[in-house]
Amino acid sequence: MQTRLDRLRAIMAGRALPALLVSAPANRRYLSGFTGSSGALLITPARALLITDSRYTLQAAREAPDFAVRELINPGRPLPAVLKAAAAEQGLTQLGFEAAFVTVAEHRALADALAGVVELVPVEGLVEQLRVVKEADELAILRRAIAITDAAFAATLPRLRPEMSEREAAWMLEVALRIGGAEAISFPIIVAAGPNGALPHATPGDEPLGSGRPIVIDMGARVAGYHADLTRTVVLGEADERFWQIYDIVLEAQRRAIAGMRPGIHTHVVDALARDYIGSRGYGEQFGHGLGHGVGLEVHEGPGLRRALPDAPPVALQPGMVTSVEPGIYLEGWGGVRIEDLVLVTSEGATVLSQAPKLRS
Amino acid sequence: MQTRLDRLRAIMAGRALPALLVSAPANRRYLSGFTGSSGALLITPARALLITDSRYTLQAAREAPDFAVRELINPGRPLPAVLKAAAAEQGLTQLGFEAAFVTVAEHRALADALAGVVELVPVEGLVEQLRVVKEADELAILRRAIAITDAAFAATLPRLRPEMSEREAAWMLEVALRIGGAEAISFPIIVAAGPNGALPHATPGDEPLGSGRPIVIDMGARVAGYHADLTRTVVLGEADERFWQIYDIVLEAQRRAIAGMRPGIHTHVVDALARDYIGSRGYGEQFGHGLGHGVGLEVHEGPGLRRALPDAPPVALQPGMVTSVEPGIYLEGWGGVRIEDLVLVTSEGATVLSQAPKLRS
Repeated sequence: MQTRLDRLRAIMAGRALPALLVSAPANRRYLSGFTGSSGALLITPARALLITDSRYTLQAAREAPDFAVRELINPGRPLPAVLKAAAAEQGLTQLGFEAAFVTVAEHRALADALAGVVELVPVEGLVEQLRVVKEADELAILRRAIAITDAAFAATLPRLRPEMSEREAAWMLEVALRIGGAEAISFPIIVAAGPNGALPHATPGDEPLGSGRPIVIDMGARVAGYHADLTRTVVLGEADERFWQIYDIVLEAQRRAIAGMRPGIHTHVVDALARDYIGSRGYGEQFGHGLGHGVGLEVHEGPGLRRALPDAPPVALQPGMVTSVEPGIYLEGWGGVRIEDLVLVTSEGATVLSQAPKLRS
Repeated sequence: MQTRLDRLRAIMAGRALPALLVSAPANRRYLSGFTGSSGALLITPARALLITDSRYTLQAAREAPDFAVRELINPGRPLPAVLKAAAAEQGLTQLGFEAAFVTVAEHRALADALAGVVELVPVEGLVEQLRVVKEADELAILRRAIAITDAAFAATLPRLRPEMSEREAAWMLEVALRIGGAEAISFPIIVAAGPNGALPHATPGDEPLGSGRPIVIDMGARVAGYHADLTRTVVLGEADERFWQIYDIVLEAQRRAIAGMRPGIHTHVVDALARDYIGSRGYGEQFGHGLGHGVGLEVHEGPGLRRALPDAPPVALQPGMVTSVEPGIYLEGWGGVRIEDLVLVTSEGATVLSQAPKLRS
């Protein structure tokens, strides 16, 4: 079986790139297994180095057995000096770097250290394009993260009361996730009651959940570095006519998008399946974000289900991709309804992985 | 009273910088009050714009009353286009950007959009230099975060048992922090028992706490965006001779450093007060990290108490700075001892803010 490093090296060969510096934390972990918060990988056809500081060298050797661990030189600005030495040792004259992660200041330090010897080549998405299709072991972890999330939501929902604050509800959900086996939460939990739900990324506060109004709950368990992501909109007490009207539009938009997901279909087409339906019901302007995003070592990663953009062209779905499908309608002064499931693209179509209950199915 | 914006504008004027793009999340929040995860500030002598996307525009208007909120243009790569329009509107020909935060890819997009019109000027540390000295309201929040941290540690310590795993202990501490009023934890809590303590940044796992060996606990409450940071090393049951020997060296190193802190003393001198003592006792090589770091809107910020580096020259302490003082000794195969307090520089000297109990005082 081709390892992740093999596949990356094939991509590098296809671009005639003799060496790649991997700085992005999720890419670093994906390729090496190293979970520390600081370090970089230097990948060449023959070698794989993990460069980190003294806090992490023991851990790196344990977690990344396929990599030679090299310690950063302290004190002094360390990475450029280590790379300069490695480049000399290996006779490198070109080095790709991740332009979306290396800062201008870091780039300047690298360029100074390598001036006249190594040409720095900006690249984007080389490791990310591997990460979009999940391997079996990654899927098993994601399924566990999703199951923990579903169970925490289902166990907590009956315990919510109108007089509880958003903050209290978010904490109950967080405890349920952690007790259920999450190593951490995937992101700060959103509980947005009533008008607060009109902010797609509201922060839970003192607002009571209240009765008869929409409550948007967005949450996820992190397991072994992988992120689940689930949104449900609920009502305590009786929901009114208007709520059901909005809810059913969002639910139908989600259903249409998922029904259309299969290998070969492009991401902007999936987005349009939901967006056009919401537009046809008169709420196009109130659905301001993309339909979904990939999940994995990052809670937001490729592929993005959204309108085609000049800088982010659509991609064709492939079996093994896992994305959120999360249409929403946000009405200032009233609130929001968002419904989000994680969906696995299969060889025939798509499987909904999230199993948390909805108000209607 | 001079506002933060006033002081930033004075720094900009001193550098003849007519406009600054603020991208770093902590700097953005410090200047504007906006807590969202996405956005940028455009500061000029006369105006202050907060540019964010549609998910955050309502929130931004609420949180950042001194800023005009401008919505990102969607779809398309948005920030460069908005900046181009703003630059034209305001007649800008030069724009500073935060080189330590803007990535090479972002810079390229900005440079493309502004080519021939606006010169991009890399700057570093302009807002950070304001943040190192805390204002009264910031100190009040930090004191609250520290008190919550101290109380959570003190309440949990008597409940730890040798058969508990590091992970269980970390979770008990986290619950105590959250129940005590933390909005979040400042960073993933470290509980490192026995040999695991030799990794300064160990991740809590299945290892039992055990009896008679060092357990390093590093934790902190986040309150209103501000981070506490506390380390204690404890032993369940009887500590042996060796432990006490190491513990007393670390404690004395910390005492000496804190005793030397006062306005005007340089950060590398404070570092040396602890480092030289540990070295004189034969453990210089086993203290591999800096003595301390500032805390605030970031858990690691300026000033750094560490050896002078070419790229990070020492700074003189000023009243209102708050730093950790955290010497440590790490012995592979045995474990570690680290003791960390947060310390406020006052007009006369320094006040230890952390009050969590130590094994000896």
